[in-house]
Amino acid sequence: MSALRAAGAANALRPSVAAGSVASSRSFSSAGAMRMAAAKPFHKNEPRAPVLKTKSIPGPESSRYIEELNKSFETRSVNMMVDYTKSEGNYVADPDGNLLLDVYAQIASIPVGYNNPALAEVARSPEMVDAIINRPALGNFPAHTWASLLKTGVLKVAPKGLDNVYTAMAGSDANEIAYKAAFMYRRQLERGGPDAEFTPEELESTMRNEAPGAPHLSILSFKQGFHGRLFGSLSTTRSKPIHKLDIPAFDWPQATFPKCKYPLDQYAEENAKAERASLDEVEHLIKTWRLPPAAVVVEPIQSEGGDNHALPSFFQKLRALTKKHNVLLIVDEVQTGVGATGKFWAHDHWNLQDPPDMVTFSKKAQTAGYYYRSKDLRPNKPYRQFNTWMGDPAKALLFRGIINEIERHDLVNHTAKVGDYLYGKLESLARQYPEHFQNLRGKGQGTFIAFDNPKRDAFLAKAKTFGINIGGSGTGAVRLRPMLIFQEHHADILVEALEKIVKAL
Amino acid sequence: MSALRAAGAANALRPSVAAGSVASSRSFSSAGAMRMAAAKPFHKNEPRAPVLKTKSIPGPESSRYIEELNKSFETRSVNMMVDYTKSEGNYVADPDGNLLLDVYAQIASIPVGYNNPALAEVARSPEMVDAIINRPALGNFPAHTWASLLKTGVLKVAPKGLDNVYTAMAGSDANEIAYKAAFMYRRQLERGGPDAEFTPEELESTMRNEAPGAPHLSILSFKQGFHGRLFGSLSTTRSKPIHKLDIPAFDWPQATFPKCKYPLDQYAEENAKAERASLDEVEHLIKTWRLPPAAVVVEPIQSEGGDNHALPSFFQKLRALTKKHNVLLIVDEVQTGVGATGKFWAHDHWNLQDPPDMVTFSKKAQTAGYYYRSKDLRPNKPYRQFNTWMGDPAKALLFRGIINEIERHDLVNHTAKVGDYLYGKLESLARQYPEHFQNLRGKGQGTFIAFDNPKRDAFLAKAKTFGINIGGSGTGAVRLRPMLIFQEHHADILVEALEKIVKAL
Repeated sequence: MSALRAAGAANALRPSVAAGSVASSRSFSSAGAMRMAAAKPFHKNEPRAPVLKTKSIPGPESSRYIEELNKSFETRSVNMMVDYTKSEGNYVADPDGNLLLDVYAQIASIPVGYNNPALAEVARSPEMVDAIINRPALGNFPAHTWASLLKTGVLKVAPKGLDNVYTAMAGSDANEIAYKAAFMYRRQLERGGPDAEFTPEELESTMRNEAPGAPHLSILSFKQGFHGRLFGSLSTTRSKPIHKLDIPAFDWPQATFPKCKYPLDQYAEENAKAERASLDEVEHLIKTWRLPPAAVVVEPIQSEGGDNHALPSFFQKLRALTKKHNVLLIVDEVQTGVGATGKFWAHDHWNLQDPPDMVTFSKKAQTAGYYYRSKDLRPNKPYRQFNTWMGDPAKALLFRGIINEIERHDLVNHTAKVGDYLYGKLESLARQYPEHFQNLRGKGQGTFIAFDNPKRDAFLAKAKTFGINIGGSGTGAVRLRPMLIFQEHHADILVEALEKIVKAL
Repeated sequence: MSALRAAGAANALRPSVAAGSVASSRSFSSAGAMRMAAAKPFHKNEPRAPVLKTKSIPGPESSRYIEELNKSFETRSVNMMVDYTKSEGNYVADPDGNLLLDVYAQIASIPVGYNNPALAEVARSPEMVDAIINRPALGNFPAHTWASLLKTGVLKVAPKGLDNVYTAMAGSDANEIAYKAAFMYRRQLERGGPDAEFTPEELESTMRNEAPGAPHLSILSFKQGFHGRLFGSLSTTRSKPIHKLDIPAFDWPQATFPKCKYPLDQYAEENAKAERASLDEVEHLIKTWRLPPAAVVVEPIQSEGGDNHALPSFFQKLRALTKKHNVLLIVDEVQTGVGATGKFWAHDHWNLQDPPDMVTFSKKAQTAGYYYRSKDLRPNKPYRQFNTWMGDPAKALLFRGIINEIERHDLVNHTAKVGDYLYGKLESLARQYPEHFQNLRGKGQGTFIAFDNPKRDAFLAKAKTFGINIGGSGTGAVRLRPMLIFQEHHADILVEALEKIVKAL
């Protein structure tokens, strides 16, 4: 209790922290801070610049907290111990008084800033209290307000052509229930439609985990793809060995994601060739893999696996190819969704004629699930797609608050513009330091930008000493995942720091 | 928005609903209500008895809400449309003004009553607001208050011998990450300990989902067991075909759960024989199954699969057997945990010398995860057991509030006593109506009581018309899953209604 009470007290001291940032021992006073003076931040209480109080991070207080936590919880992956009560907008605080510009944002999952006042109001609302203390088993006992909450929230931003949703808890289970829907759909087709009954052999064999009840089917994913870490999702994840080692996996196929050269538009011919090779491999696997794919799952940008981009034409052809073979297309927007690419959904960039069959979401939505078209994809009987909670109205309320905040500030268009600004600055940096900003990518994709650095891990570590919290993806990429309230003056501070980092490498 | 505002307004009208219950059109005025007058309810605002306003449930208002919801969300499994703002304590309300005594409690997941005032305070606290609007990626960026929150909450009730926790979102993923830990542990043993490096062959094959990197190992579960519905957990779930059909599954083994006769103590010899047969089968499968089991997962009471009980001696021997073969024992307390059996954890009834290796939890905890012993079971490297959120501090705060409420009212001991009282009453009913209360079970297991009824589905449907919300398990059981604030006067109302139900069947 006492630590939390201390946190509450720290909260009350917030103004003095902001004052502290002005009196920072190290200077962030050049272009960024000057621009800041003129800029109107979305987040009023946001500091003007990073503040560094300790020589290295974690500092002594943070280290003490990590040691304490390590007694009962995994800490070897701790990147930074955070004091959330002192974090504001784009800035993340630690218990030592350090305050970093955060362009990693809880692995791309904070949409509208730490301690966002509008979300705080949602969190304090009677509806939220009700949702927290009376959590329903949504499949059996939904609240009478659930349809309205979906309509004004989750479904208000449903991708074009998709009007239904199954809610879930996080990206992994969102993908897995989408896979389950794909398998049920496929077997229903094979069986002869929704009215065809299960055979006694199916009913019996499924209890032994054997075919035909537990069918020999698969989900096709792409090399370097990341779709989660539970058993089904991990079988489609192909990011890194450390994510997969020692865990049994399904014998499912993987295709090569187009190995594109950047900038994408400058290598049109090579990229078209890479795209063709990937599509040919997908088609070959669909036609020949020993466990036929019921669906293809793909990220609009491979986000964990190295920020790998492909052109809209690739996805358009992938959609056509999956249609041709009656294989479903699941677009995994867990990391790309909710505005960061300058469109609400990254696949909006593709201008598809036929929408994807399912779109999965989580992270910045704070809730999770998959969108789908009702007429085909609802299983033919109840209790086939079911679990106790089936999502969480408390998180759906939060997503509605996030959507309202995005609309109020037009944050998707804002992010498109700030992304262009930031990308331009990074292009200049890349011309100046080509060895440190290789394969700059994400042009026209909002702030969803990345580059490769030969000393990537050192780069990420060093960034903190220049006031920046930043993450990596794949084996060599630095990934930018700012929040949607990231503005030009933040971009200036970031770019200035990036230059200092590479100079110090 | 408008529907939620309406809900808020309804909230303000709560006193008049309570008044409505007194003026109920149908009578619940006998023993139960009289006892009620003398009883001191844990929940002050709780109605005195069920209220039935419509001839059948769903009534017209509920039907309208269901129809609206059906446009975008699965509704065929809807049991009852609920107005949570009007629900109180043990009573669940619907939009038609019906108020039922709820002994199903959101599939056994509401611990201390609807609209519990102490939990409402937790929900309104600054700590909760912080946890909701600043959700951390716990593995990378935990709050400095996280260790303290675990210590005063989740870990305060850790099962004997287990001092570490991995937090999760729900029962399914809690089980799956426990399975992952078991596989990593097993392969580490085979590899020669935590310092042995992965081989190049492992690193390469795991990316193709092939052995040795993706090993040919299994989790052994029991027939009728339920452990969740994601791909790994569903491979261990053996409850009903409808839960499993059309979903690919791992080739994992299942053993027969002891087919005990009830009451357990009256059939000592038969049950010992059933126990022995089950254990022999487990040992045979451990020794011979084509994919060796890394762990055995078992529920203390098979809760979804029909309320199947076994004696402590069975579990003691199962612990010894798994030790003997160096196979881990995972106890799935998702449904049995947090007090309902009259002990905080159901496996506390077993008096084990060696604790289970892992205990998974969710439902009444409102958060989820698995407890374990740190020295063996933390994977040898970071990022092996990892995901973006790794649980949710908001739900951990709620669990702490639940634990405090349980302690304040001594609800575990209370539930043991009320369970004995209820069981006694049901024994009398069973003597009077033996055909309707077959295989009464759960003696000495708090309120975790069940019986078989030959017209089970009709029984469950009919119950609503007598003011009771009640669930089933397996194919023929009626399962009682009251909250921990269920009291003797509620037992009287329930028993009275049960008699009416069977008379009307």
